Amino acid sequence: MANTAGYHVAVVGATGAVGKQMIQTLERRNFPIGKLTLLSSSRSAGTKVQFKGEEITVQEATPESFEGVQIALFSAGGSVSKKFAPEAVKRGAIVIDNTSAFRMDKDVPLVVPEVNEEDIKQHNGIIANPNCSTIQMVVALEPIRQLYGLSRIVVSTYQAVSGSGAAAVQELNEQTQALLNGDTYEAKILPVKGDKKHYQIAFNAIPQIDVFTENGFTYEEMKMINETKKIMHMPELKVSATCVRIPVAVGHSESVYFEVEKDGVSAEDIQKILTNAPGVVVEDKPEEQQYPMAVNAVGELDTFVGRIRKDLDDDKGFHMWVVSDNLLKGAAWNSVQIAESLIKLDLI
Amino acid sequence: MANTAGYHVAVVGATGAVGKQMIQTLERRNFPIGKLTLLSSSRSAGTKVQFKGEEITVQEATPESFEGVQIALFSAGGSVSKKFAPEAVKRGAIVIDNTSAFRMDKDVPLVVPEVNEEDIKQHNGIIANPNCSTIQMVVALEPIRQLYGLSRIVVSTYQAVSGSGAAAVQELNEQTQALLNGDTYEAKILPVKGDKKHYQIAFNAIPQIDVFTENGFTYEEMKMINETKKIMHMPELKVSATCVRIPVAVGHSESVYFEVEKDGVSAEDIQKILTNAPGVVVEDKPEEQQYPMAVNAVGELDTFVGRIRKDLDDDKGFHMWVVSDNLLKGAAWNSVQIAESLIKLDLI
Repeated sequence: MANTAGYHVAVVGATGAVGKQMIQTLERRNFPIGKLTLLSSSRSAGTKVQFKGEEITVQEATPESFEGVQIALFSAGGSVSKKFAPEAVKRGAIVIDNTSAFRMDKDVPLVVPEVNEEDIKQHNGIIANPNCSTIQMVVALEPIRQLYGLSRIVVSTYQAVSGSGAAAVQELNEQTQALLNGDTYEAKILPVKGDKKHYQIAFNAIPQIDVFTENGFTYEEMKMINETKKIMHMPELKVSATCVRIPVAVGHSESVYFEVEKDGVSAEDIQKILTNAPGVVVEDKPEEQQYPMAVNAVGELDTFVGRIRKDLDDDKGFHMWVVSDNLLKGAAWNSVQIAESLIKLDLI
Repeated sequence: MANTAGYHVAVVGATGAVGKQMIQTLERRNFPIGKLTLLSSSRSAGTKVQFKGEEITVQEATPESFEGVQIALFSAGGSVSKKFAPEAVKRGAIVIDNTSAFRMDKDVPLVVPEVNEEDIKQHNGIIANPNCSTIQMVVALEPIRQLYGLSRIVVSTYQAVSGSGAAAVQELNEQTQALLNGDTYEAKILPVKGDKKHYQIAFNAIPQIDVFTENGFTYEEMKMINETKKIMHMPELKVSATCVRIPVAVGHSESVYFEVEKDGVSAEDIQKILTNAPGVVVEDKPEEQQYPMAVNAVGELDTFVGRIRKDLDDDKGFHMWVVSDNLLKGAAWNSVQIAESLIKLDLI
C-alpha cells in the first residue's frame, strides 16, 4: 500500500518531551505524511503545534481517533499504550510504541534498525522501540559483535534528566537555580515520579532510574539487560547494568566494558569497524582531547563513540564511552526510523 | 618521641580546597598540636586562617619553614611536594603527601589506614596519600578481599569538580548560572587546568580526568589501577577504570563491579561484612530507596556503600555503589588519619 500522497501518521503523547521530538523528526526527515493526527490526554488537548508551517490542534486520544491512521507513534506512558495501541491496530494502524508496555512480549519485535531491522517483518501490528539507554549501546556494540562476537557487557550509565520527561528538566533547572541562590527547593519528581521518595538531582548523582525489582536491580537496569539480549537474539549474552541519573538535561553517556569472543583484536580494529558502522560517529583522539560529550550530542541523530581502549588485563576486554541524544536516537528518531524501515521493507 | 605538649604540624597548600579541609579536620579530630605552621605559595602568603579560635597567618613555603616541624601535610601540587618534601624530611619531619609525586615510589608507603596501616612502618620520611577515587574504593573492597579474595575490578567513576580545586568549583557554579541565564561562559579550567582544551562541565559529563597516557587511559585511571594494586599488595589484581567528571561540587560516586575468588558468596554476605567494616557505612535498602548519594556524603569522614547486588550471570561477580567526600576521606581526612596512625603505632 505504497502511498504517494503520504501516510496518515498519528503521534500519541504529542505534547511530551519525546512526542515533540517525534513531530520535529518527522519534519526534519521529510517523512511522507499525508495527514498528521496529534493526540494527547484530555489535559493537553487543545494545544496547538507547528508542523511544516501549519498549525495542528492536539486532540484527546479516543479509540475512534485512530480511524484511518496507518502509522501510530506512541510515547505517552505504558498505560496509554496498553489501552490505545490495540485500538489502533484493530483499525488497521501499525503501532510503533516507545513505552515499555510491549517490549518483552514475544509477539512484538523490539527494533533498532541498525541492529535488527529484519525483525520488523515479524510484527503483528505493534513494533516496540527499546529503552533509550539500550538503543545507543546496541548501536555501538552490534558492528563489533558481527565481526568478533560478544560474550559480555558491563555498563554504567550517566543518564540525562529528560528521560524522566519535560517536568523533570524543569525540576533540574529550578532546583539548580535555587541552590545557586542559597535557597532550598523540594524535589517532587526525581528520581522516579511514581516512587515514594524524591531526591535532589542538582549537583548530585542518583543511582536509581525507575523503581527497584526484587533482585536489587532497577527496572531500568533490567530493561538494558533483557532488551539487549532480545535485540541481539542472544539470550545467553552476559549483560549487567548500573543506571545513574546525573544533572544533565539531554544526552545519555555510557561507560561500556565488553568482551569479544575472538582473540587478538586491537583497539584500532574496534575503531575501524565503528568508523564504518551505520548510525555511529567515532570521536576518539585522546591526543586532541577528542571524545563524545552529552552537550555535543544534543540534536544529533547519531550515536557517538570514543575512549575506545583495550583492557590492560584481558585480551578480549575493551572499554568505550557511548553518547547519544536520548530524546532522538533514544526515542523519537529510532521510532521514526522504524517507520522509515516499514516503507523501505515494503511493509506498509 | 611522644609529645604531650602536642606536635608541630605544618600544612603546605593551606589555602587550597584540600588544605582548608586538612586544617578543619585537624581541629575536628582534636589532633594533638603544639604548633601549627601554615604554608603556601607566595601568591597566597599573608592569608589569615582560623584554627581553634586563633588566627594563623599563612607564610610562603621555604626550605627553612620546616625547621622543627614534626609532621608536614602536603597538598599543593606535585611540583611543590617534589621541591619541599625532601627539605622537610632533611629537617626531621615526616611528610604525608597528598599529591601523586611519590605514590608509586617503591620506597614510599601508599597508605589507607583501614587497608594497609602497617605499611606506614616502612616509611623513609615520606608517606603518600592515594588518589581520592582510589581511597574510597579500596576502603569498600578490602574487607571483602580479606574474607573472599578479590580477582577483578571494573570501576566507572562519577567524580566531583572539587577534585580539580576550588577554582574549578567556582567555574562550575558561574558556568551553571550563565547557562541558566541563557548566557555563554567560556571554560578555562576543566577538564584539566594544564591541558590544551577546556570544556563545559555544567549539565555535562566529561570522560577525562587528568591528561591522557599513551595507552589511551588517563593518568587518573592509571592511578586507580596502579595504586589499588600497591595498596592491596596485589600486583596481579585485574583492575580497570573509566574516570568521568560530572557537575557535582563535592562527593565522588563510583559504580564498582568486582569478582571474588570464593564460590557461593551472596549479596547479603557482602552487606554483612561491610556493615562491620571500619570507615564504611552501608546504606542499602532499595525497598526504602536508600542508597548513598554525593550530596549526603559531604562533610562526612566515612565511605558509604549501597546498591550491593550479585551479578546475574557470574556467581563470583558483584556490583556496588560507593560514595565519599573526596576532600575528606579522599584527601584531608585520610592524611590526618595517617598522622593519627603514626602516633598510634608509636612512630613519632
